[in-house]
Amino acid sequence: MTVDSQPETLLPLPPVSGAEALPQGTWTSVAGTSCGVAQGYIKGKGARRDDVAVMVAPGVAAALTTASTAAAAPCRWTRSRVPGLVHAVVVNAGNANASTGAQGERDTAETAAAVAGVLGCAVDQVLVCSTGVIGVPLPMDRLLPAAREAAAAALSSGADGHRLARSIMTTDLVPKECAYRVDGVTVAGVTKGSGMIHPNMATMLAFLVTDAVVPAEALQGLLAEAADRSFHCLTVDGDTSTNDTLILQSTGRGPVCEPGTPAWNALREALFATCVHLARDIARDGEGATRLVECVIWGTDSDAAARRAARAVLRSPLVKSAVHGRDPNWGRIVGALGAEGVKDLDRLDLDLCGVPVLRHGQPLDWDEAAASAAMEGLEPRFVARLPGPGLGVAWGCDLSAAYVAINADYRS
Amino acid sequence: MTVDSQPETLLPLPPVSGAEALPQGTWTSVAGTSCGVAQGYIKGKGARRDDVAVMVAPGVAAALTTASTAAAAPCRWTRSRVPGLVHAVVVNAGNANASTGAQGERDTAETAAAVAGVLGCAVDQVLVCSTGVIGVPLPMDRLLPAAREAAAAALSSGADGHRLARSIMTTDLVPKECAYRVDGVTVAGVTKGSGMIHPNMATMLAFLVTDAVVPAEALQGLLAEAADRSFHCLTVDGDTSTNDTLILQSTGRGPVCEPGTPAWNALREALFATCVHLARDIARDGEGATRLVECVIWGTDSDAAARRAARAVLRSPLVKSAVHGRDPNWGRIVGALGAEGVKDLDRLDLDLCGVPVLRHGQPLDWDEAAASAAMEGLEPRFVARLPGPGLGVAWGCDLSAAYVAINADYRS
Repeated sequence: MTVDSQPETLLPLPPVSGAEALPQGTWTSVAGTSCGVAQGYIKGKGARRDDVAVMVAPGVAAALTTASTAAAAPCRWTRSRVPGLVHAVVVNAGNANASTGAQGERDTAETAAAVAGVLGCAVDQVLVCSTGVIGVPLPMDRLLPAAREAAAAALSSGADGHRLARSIMTTDLVPKECAYRVDGVTVAGVTKGSGMIHPNMATMLAFLVTDAVVPAEALQGLLAEAADRSFHCLTVDGDTSTNDTLILQSTGRGPVCEPGTPAWNALREALFATCVHLARDIARDGEGATRLVECVIWGTDSDAAARRAARAVLRSPLVKSAVHGRDPNWGRIVGALGAEGVKDLDRLDLDLCGVPVLRHGQPLDWDEAAASAAMEGLEPRFVARLPGPGLGVAWGCDLSAAYVAINADYRS
Repeated sequence: MTVDSQPETLLPLPPVSGAEALPQGTWTSVAGTSCGVAQGYIKGKGARRDDVAVMVAPGVAAALTTASTAAAAPCRWTRSRVPGLVHAVVVNAGNANASTGAQGERDTAETAAAVAGVLGCAVDQVLVCSTGVIGVPLPMDRLLPAAREAAAAALSSGADGHRLARSIMTTDLVPKECAYRVDGVTVAGVTKGSGMIHPNMATMLAFLVTDAVVPAEALQGLLAEAADRSFHCLTVDGDTSTNDTLILQSTGRGPVCEPGTPAWNALREALFATCVHLARDIARDGEGATRLVECVIWGTDSDAAARRAARAVLRSPLVKSAVHGRDPNWGRIVGALGAEGVKDLDRLDLDLCGVPVLRHGQPLDWDEAAASAAMEGLEPRFVARLPGPGLGVAWGCDLSAAYVAINADYRS
């Protein structure tokens, strides 16, 4: 997963050339972390698979949770406790604990308490995440023993980050993990998500950790900025989940990073590199996807507007289907920009995988054979230029028949 | 198409029980209309198929065109001429004349002029519509002779509305046409559209005509209202097209309909019945769709908010995939409502095809077997209740592997 997903080609991002990707990097690559994994028989109709994990990184933490008004109980629990002191995070796959009413709230608190009891920390310092099916009460008789077991494992020999990355998978085909180091600051992370992926804090579960010493409030601001440039630039199917959560813990074992200092810049660079890496991994592993697509917008009024436009292009099922069919049907990109309300399309320049197709709103006598050939590439890229200072990039994937097959029978 | 698409079950609509569906109803069911159809070798790689049509209904007309900022040249032509006097409409399938720059503008004007020349009317009284591939200049050497031929045919024996309905099809599998009569007022229409279907004036080409005598401005207001309750409640794939156009012509051969009179109410009822009928036909014929889905929202702050929420549910690829798989995974409906920002979901009641699954935000000990069985029905319906006075309905379809197949190779 890691070799071909280096983000160095991503124009709108801050330079990441200084970010060193750690070999076999994963959540536990950061000093002061430990994790434990257990089988709660929650995922996959009670199959014997890792589906409960506890991540211990005592220190401060920041988090973003879903913007959905149907936010799951664990999201409400987590968001009310950050930024602040956090000892550990407990996560289960296979059940979202969403749309579960007051029982869901109680189950979340009870899960946190079980983990806190084993770790010897305050209940309020345990964040909770759940992912899986909506509307089914958590099987607490299986979850609680597994959560305690995972917490105990984190205290003893523990699991490595690779096993952690696998434990949080649902319809994901591959684990997603990485770690980057810049000037002695390390940031690492794991993530899951391949469907119900769309920005709005959104998209998935992602667990990041750094050794940097940072005040909690500053960490929260930095995480929001990094998410805007990475996970929020992602669209797989346009669905914002009830459970999306992005957590950044800090162990405080590394350099002191105060805003405005070179150490802060190093942290920022490592964090952005980690977030972009994981976001691209999610797009590449989109449900039924065969490849990552990138859309870059130069122009529009602001970076935020450019990112919105880029996401709109990659959200279009018609564009996604064309990418799947290797069809250089660039009119659908223009159609998606128009549907999004992007202005000045009579001055649009558009390149399809490096082949110019439109200049100043006028179709060129383009090389269709070259464009078709270019669309065969593993990671097609669309570049649009418009008036204005904005600059944005988004990542998505193609739409395949497999997406339908996965989602038509996910639950049953 | 017509027998099973009677809209009498649609709660949020005005009563349509008085609307009489005319047998074999189609655009030419209205007195004072005539149409002609020709083969322009534009659609389907120049195959020998009807793809150019001229609809003659001298009188006034109203129209709504796409909200896309990439609106095609014919949309810009049409919207600047309504409401007002209109003699005829010319439409071609196979080429959208969108993203074609200044040449596209000239081609539209030239097409209108060719038709006006044959019909002996002012160029400004000919509206123009195009549908098909984006970004390719119109083949004027083939289009102009066909437009003149269709206009001439409309003047002589002409075609019937059934042939007209077929001529405007692109990826549509079935023609879509109907006519309704209420108290002597007749409204009739044909429409095309199965992909790139989403509200925002949007969705397709639809040609409506009535014999009612109505001032043009009043006709425009009525059309906008009817569209809000029908075509704008439609979502197939969330893509707003560059070419969407809805035109309502009036021949003035029937009753005088002044706002506030019983005749006006009859016109309104016949128009709503026609629009809902055609909108449901579009959803049912969605690209790759196997069935129509209906979502009704009782509650939220307003009818408009309720319609938005209902559309959001049916736009979700996860919901659409579940419908395809006959999977009663109602959590995805809650997820879609949450992603749309719908409030008070802790007080949500939800019924899935008549089976109660959620009351006041609490999952019921529901009858999953009954829900699964109900999902097997031809036209599944979701009903959600929330606090508030709003009431809205939306129509959509399931997402199937066939959608991808259709759109991965539409162009090539």
